[in-house]
Amino acid sequence: MRPDLSRALATAGHLLLLGLLLASVGHAQDAFVPASTNVGGAEYPRVSEDGRVQFRLEAPEATAVRANYWSGPKEDMERDAEGVWTVTAPAVAPGLHYYTFIVDGVEFADPSSRSFYGGSRYVSAVEVPEPGVDYYAVRDVPHGQVREVWYDSDVTGSWRHAFVYVPPGYDADLDTRYPVLYLQHGGGEDETGWVRQGNVNFILDNLIEAGEAEPMLVVMASGYARRADAADEPPPANRWEGLQRMFSVFEDDVTQELIPFVDETFRTIPDREHRAMAGLSMGGMQTFHTTLNHLDLFSYIGGFSGAAIPGGANGLDLATAYGGVFADPDAFADRVNLLWIGIGTDEPEGMYAGVNGVHTALAEAGIDHVYYESPGTDHEWQTWRRSLHDFAPRLFR
Amino acid sequence: MRPDLSRALATAGHLLLLGLLLASVGHAQDAFVPASTNVGGAEYPRVSEDGRVQFRLEAPEATAVRANYWSGPKEDMERDAEGVWTVTAPAVAPGLHYYTFIVDGVEFADPSSRSFYGGSRYVSAVEVPEPGVDYYAVRDVPHGQVREVWYDSDVTGSWRHAFVYVPPGYDADLDTRYPVLYLQHGGGEDETGWVRQGNVNFILDNLIEAGEAEPMLVVMASGYARRADAADEPPPANRWEGLQRMFSVFEDDVTQELIPFVDETFRTIPDREHRAMAGLSMGGMQTFHTTLNHLDLFSYIGGFSGAAIPGGANGLDLATAYGGVFADPDAFADRVNLLWIGIGTDEPEGMYAGVNGVHTALAEAGIDHVYYESPGTDHEWQTWRRSLHDFAPRLFR
Repeated sequence: MRPDLSRALATAGHLLLLGLLLASVGHAQDAFVPASTNVGGAEYPRVSEDGRVQFRLEAPEATAVRANYWSGPKEDMERDAEGVWTVTAPAVAPGLHYYTFIVDGVEFADPSSRSFYGGSRYVSAVEVPEPGVDYYAVRDVPHGQVREVWYDSDVTGSWRHAFVYVPPGYDADLDTRYPVLYLQHGGGEDETGWVRQGNVNFILDNLIEAGEAEPMLVVMASGYARRADAADEPPPANRWEGLQRMFSVFEDDVTQELIPFVDETFRTIPDREHRAMAGLSMGGMQTFHTTLNHLDLFSYIGGFSGAAIPGGANGLDLATAYGGVFADPDAFADRVNLLWIGIGTDEPEGMYAGVNGVHTALAEAGIDHVYYESPGTDHEWQTWRRSLHDFAPRLFR
Repeated sequence: MRPDLSRALATAGHLLLLGLLLASVGHAQDAFVPASTNVGGAEYPRVSEDGRVQFRLEAPEATAVRANYWSGPKEDMERDAEGVWTVTAPAVAPGLHYYTFIVDGVEFADPSSRSFYGGSRYVSAVEVPEPGVDYYAVRDVPHGQVREVWYDSDVTGSWRHAFVYVPPGYDADLDTRYPVLYLQHGGGEDETGWVRQGNVNFILDNLIEAGEAEPMLVVMASGYARRADAADEPPPANRWEGLQRMFSVFEDDVTQELIPFVDETFRTIPDREHRAMAGLSMGGMQTFHTTLNHLDLFSYIGGFSGAAIPGGANGLDLATAYGGVFADPDAFADRVNLLWIGIGTDEPEGMYAGVNGVHTALAEAGIDHVYYESPGTDHEWQTWRRSLHDFAPRLFR
């Protein structure tokens, strides 16, 4: 008897082995190469050294197809005789760019690209290399691990999910204890973002190997939190009340559940001098909210494209915000080892003005802090990779 | 000065916080509830207890929309006056079902669903609960961790990526060493599949807590491998040569790079009596290929919907296959602690015939093995969750 696995293989329509094996031809003849974010073997999108991207979609029956950068150009694509739509989009900044296709009015992820969780959905993104820059690349250096953990939260009444980066050598010397950076994603993203989109593990591997950052743990938890008894609460009266409520649940979850879990599960140095928190966009606001209400727990603070939460419609009053922590600049400087704020120069005007305004207000009030601007980048991951790359070396020294 | 972060927030088009906060209304009035695989807050797809799924897509300009289960019904959707397309698809088996929408001939992932890597792309999947079954659910038991690791492979000349499940308590008692199961994904999927689609970590957590499986490590590596000097090789002459070549590189990578890395990095029991390998579909064939050529390294073997590799077009000859390892049934039984083969009863005819044929051939030849059939499931994750749930308790006892 001859088991017919060849037939079985032939019927496995999704077994694209041969394609993977054969799709390895170079393209030295032009300047465009397949993006590193493509799924295995996909030839498109293709990127050029100067940041242009060629998109492609086969859609013979469609009447209009557009390549749609979320932060950047939206380009009508052109149909050829076979129904293949293509376009070469104008140059964008280096880094990871979310995009979709819009086909006859419907917005979808590109089947040829890896998908990432952003904008509260799975969306395509294309990596545009930054020439000469490799601090977020997987290089030939020792690599830490990223550990997926679950912790049981009484605050939310649920098992919650987080990722923890441990530096190279964590399992080699069992007497060493480490400081901890809590690092938050933005709104519409989740706890996978800093690894998948941000390359946080490679950034830390590279900084640590170069001696430019202390070996540390990085904890990335979900920023969304809902109280165990939320069903009994009245709905928030407005957007601000809703935000404040979520930030308050997040604050309780971090301080009452996550930190004790991390300190119990990992070899941390469990004190405020060895604990930092940072976050991007919404995560930056959550960082300010959580750390400035708990300076007994944190002494390093980072806001990447998101910082203070204004007091509802009335803005931020430094004399009273966060229990008056900013009222005495000298006392603040004694207590807080680092207050770091960053923004991309090409972010939307309101965001730039907001974060830059926090910086200006702090400077005018004489509050010691670091202010960073990422040149030529928008509200996007390249801004936050650069922010982390500037922020992390300042920690725990 | 009042930094205007309210304006910043308002311009953050993807900051969908309020939607998340408010999208918590129940639907007790009917039997359909949002699928657990939906992205945060998404109301569709919705599943019923009997396995029917309601799909929904807003596409006012489209002329034809279809909900397309990869293994299952393909349903034309109906447009309402506002351009919203819906359909209630006939009941499918419990488990995770890949699907897409086909809009005017273009196949896309559903923006409302989580995406998973399958079929060499990111695709939607809907989880249809199995009533009364919770062996793959996140339950109130101690949880292990899933660790993302990188290892430097001379075989492939690249940094390779894998996930390692460590059981609950791994970091608590540093004197305990563990047996290891190497567990492979299928063709078109990748090393994320067993965690994201298969819930391997929850299956092991639950089995271990119940005392039904030994605490073990589970290593999930990429099944795709290409030799460092592949560019110098001639292209494979045909599909079988291509497959054999990839399987051979994979075999070398596992035996020469991955196993030494795992034994060095984790507290394993590094001998054949405490090392198992299993895989699904292509991964099952790779398992047979790797283990039966290395019985010095492995003593437990599992093929889930994929087992022996036929010898090209000529099928499997048990007298000569894998260096004649099956030629002496008594010697085989002495050497191999477990040979396990499984298949879903609703898999495509060729696949069922192939795996069932291996079972029949082994039985006729007097080779001791376990044969399992998953009732009513196709070439899909529910078959492989059930396979693992039957296989894992038989290991290392």
